[in-house]
Amino acid sequence: MSIAAFLLALIAIFVAAKVFGEIADRAGLPAVLGELVGGVVVGVSGLRLVDPKQNTIYLLAQLGIVLLLFLIGLNTELGKLVAVGPAAFVVACAGVAITFAGGWAIAHALHFPNIVAIFLGGALTATSVGITARVLSDLGHLDDVEAQIILGAAVVDDILGVILLTLIGTIAEGADVSATAIVRTAVISFGFVILAIGLGSLLAPVLIRAIERIGMARGLFFASVVFALTLAWVAHLAGTAIIIGSFAAGLVLARCDKGKEIERQVHDVANFFVPIFFVAIGAAIDVKTLNPFDAGARRFLLVGVLLAAVAVVGKIGAGFLAPGRGLRRTVIGVGMIPRGEVSLIFAQIGLASGLLSAGLFSAITIMVFLTALATPLLLRVLLPQGLPVEEPLHGEADLVMGAPMEDERRRVAR
Amino acid sequence: MSIAAFLLALIAIFVAAKVFGEIADRAGLPAVLGELVGGVVVGVSGLRLVDPKQNTIYLLAQLGIVLLLFLIGLNTELGKLVAVGPAAFVVACAGVAITFAGGWAIAHALHFPNIVAIFLGGALTATSVGITARVLSDLGHLDDVEAQIILGAAVVDDILGVILLTLIGTIAEGADVSATAIVRTAVISFGFVILAIGLGSLLAPVLIRAIERIGMARGLFFASVVFALTLAWVAHLAGTAIIIGSFAAGLVLARCDKGKEIERQVHDVANFFVPIFFVAIGAAIDVKTLNPFDAGARRFLLVGVLLAAVAVVGKIGAGFLAPGRGLRRTVIGVGMIPRGEVSLIFAQIGLASGLLSAGLFSAITIMVFLTALATPLLLRVLLPQGLPVEEPLHGEADLVMGAPMEDERRRVAR
Repeated sequence: MSIAAFLLALIAIFVAAKVFGEIADRAGLPAVLGELVGGVVVGVSGLRLVDPKQNTIYLLAQLGIVLLLFLIGLNTELGKLVAVGPAAFVVACAGVAITFAGGWAIAHALHFPNIVAIFLGGALTATSVGITARVLSDLGHLDDVEAQIILGAAVVDDILGVILLTLIGTIAEGADVSATAIVRTAVISFGFVILAIGLGSLLAPVLIRAIERIGMARGLFFASVVFALTLAWVAHLAGTAIIIGSFAAGLVLARCDKGKEIERQVHDVANFFVPIFFVAIGAAIDVKTLNPFDAGARRFLLVGVLLAAVAVVGKIGAGFLAPGRGLRRTVIGVGMIPRGEVSLIFAQIGLASGLLSAGLFSAITIMVFLTALATPLLLRVLLPQGLPVEEPLHGEADLVMGAPMEDERRRVAR
Repeated sequence: MSIAAFLLALIAIFVAAKVFGEIADRAGLPAVLGELVGGVVVGVSGLRLVDPKQNTIYLLAQLGIVLLLFLIGLNTELGKLVAVGPAAFVVACAGVAITFAGGWAIAHALHFPNIVAIFLGGALTATSVGITARVLSDLGHLDDVEAQIILGAAVVDDILGVILLTLIGTIAEGADVSATAIVRTAVISFGFVILAIGLGSLLAPVLIRAIERIGMARGLFFASVVFALTLAWVAHLAGTAIIIGSFAAGLVLARCDKGKEIERQVHDVANFFVPIFFVAIGAAIDVKTLNPFDAGARRFLLVGVLLAAVAVVGKIGAGFLAPGRGLRRTVIGVGMIPRGEVSLIFAQIGLASGLLSAGLFSAITIMVFLTALATPLLLRVLLPQGLPVEEPLHGEADLVMGAPMEDERRRVAR
């Protein structure tokens, strides 16, 4: 990639993100939706200024989601997350099981081979922590109890999605999957999170005190960023998702004395990279596959819509396993709808291994776009303007999570 | 590049920059020198974690220098720069002429072909705005009158260097260079700066007022960054250097009401990218070429040292054409010594076109490293601790340039 193409891609990403984000905001929609649409405009279907498959854009988008999850972790209280843990775990497991089975069944009904059905089912399982957190934040509801359960379940989802991805990768390579392999993958993934938070909580205060004592220029900022990148890297080495690592880093640092200070310092840099992730998702969408007047496209459009329907219904169903009244359970289910990075990784690995056709790849991206679109629209109807859904559950009072993104956003519609 | 390699490279860059920067600072040297040494440690000669030829690292390093020059522009008053303009112009032209002739003569004395001599001479011409500004800032002297002349001359240098590069590129392709081509390249390069500042000064206030009226979230930050990236891109299209574009963008925005606010908002993001540039320069250095016990290496080590000597003597000589007393003129000459990005571009183009051998490529990088090392060491001897060199020239009173980098750095040695 030439420096000219790189500068132009960055210009296109920021202009698209800000202009379409602002339009979405004025329409009373979350800015993140505008960023996705902006991505379509500058991406492969539009101006072709942003190629999400280009290595540098891909890496910067990944850095964006890593820093977003770090910021979300910094704004999350571990204690509160543990308090909603059992509810989140149940919602996550049920959601993954229902949507995997649903996607698999639909693919079978459409006479796709079994391995393709497994891929399509797998692509439906994991809620996008990034998109759902941005939507809740854009709507001003990131500090609700529901948001906490959604976030916790989405993180568990991601871990389950990664486990599934590892297993499907093994199947795609032609190997058999043993029960031992499943257990080992699960233990590594969940073990990483527990170990990262445990060891991190011991090491982080020592690290921060050392940095303070040395008095290094901008030491706290760079130490925090390096901590987040290191946990992301270790997570990758351990075979789980990089965003799980940076989220754990955020959770750990949030518990230190300097948590708020770190959040303030990381905020600006994260905001620089985050739009790259969302614009890149939009940029990957090929709108030709959405043309209902083309018979070939219509088939995969239908698959995409069916997958999206299963994705929506499955997660709303899983939400009903959460505690509380109907509205809270519906809000949790709806909050779990958005699919994103993990689904696209399924799609990419499927395409690269030759198991998924370009049409099915597009079907998955359509599903990602539709689910990302559905959540804010549904939540706007369900959520009372700026008020909590219902009184907090026992022991969940005073749940305060500052909106990490777009703090200064005018909330026109509210 | 895989995401794991990318995360590891970023971790290595930030750790190397901060650890070696801090060591340099404790030794009373500018932090930027430590960052260069840190680059050697993690680069091709050391841990091999950072490959400066890798496309993504190269692009992020370029973004770092673009944002650094944007920040320096934001901290520079155009009026004061114009006031020192004639002096800066004379110093720049003399420095380019003397060092080009010197490099050419040395290469001829060593029996290199004429085209190689032209390349080596060209590589010596342009002072690195980035390194010299960082050194002056690290030493706490960026607000002196000398710094203003150095900065102005270094910008003119870069323009002259780019003109020379264009012409040499034409020669390397086997074409003849006409007087018309020389004039055209010069007119485009200088014309760009004048036009960018003229048009930019008209457009920027309108742009900023529009952003303010819309009230977009973080609108000022993104508008400023997009403005800088766009001018960098246009500069590239116009055939001049990208850093000239972002420096012009900074100069223009500094004149708006919101100049200080923009500087504050851009600061954190620029600080994230800037170390990538300096570590990448260090990472490119192959220390094998510095081994004095290897006969082959010794030859190119000698060439590198000779080039560095010409580079140092030529710029100090040019400094004596500046107004003021001996110390001021010496400080200006010494401040012009560091070579960086433009020299490395000469080296890379020479290597790519097959005109320079790997040994001569290394000789240029040795020259870059030695000149970057010489300046802070000489300036520390020359400059009174925290005091201006002498009373300001007529009309240059109240010259205030805040140090853009490392504001909060403890100044241990001072």
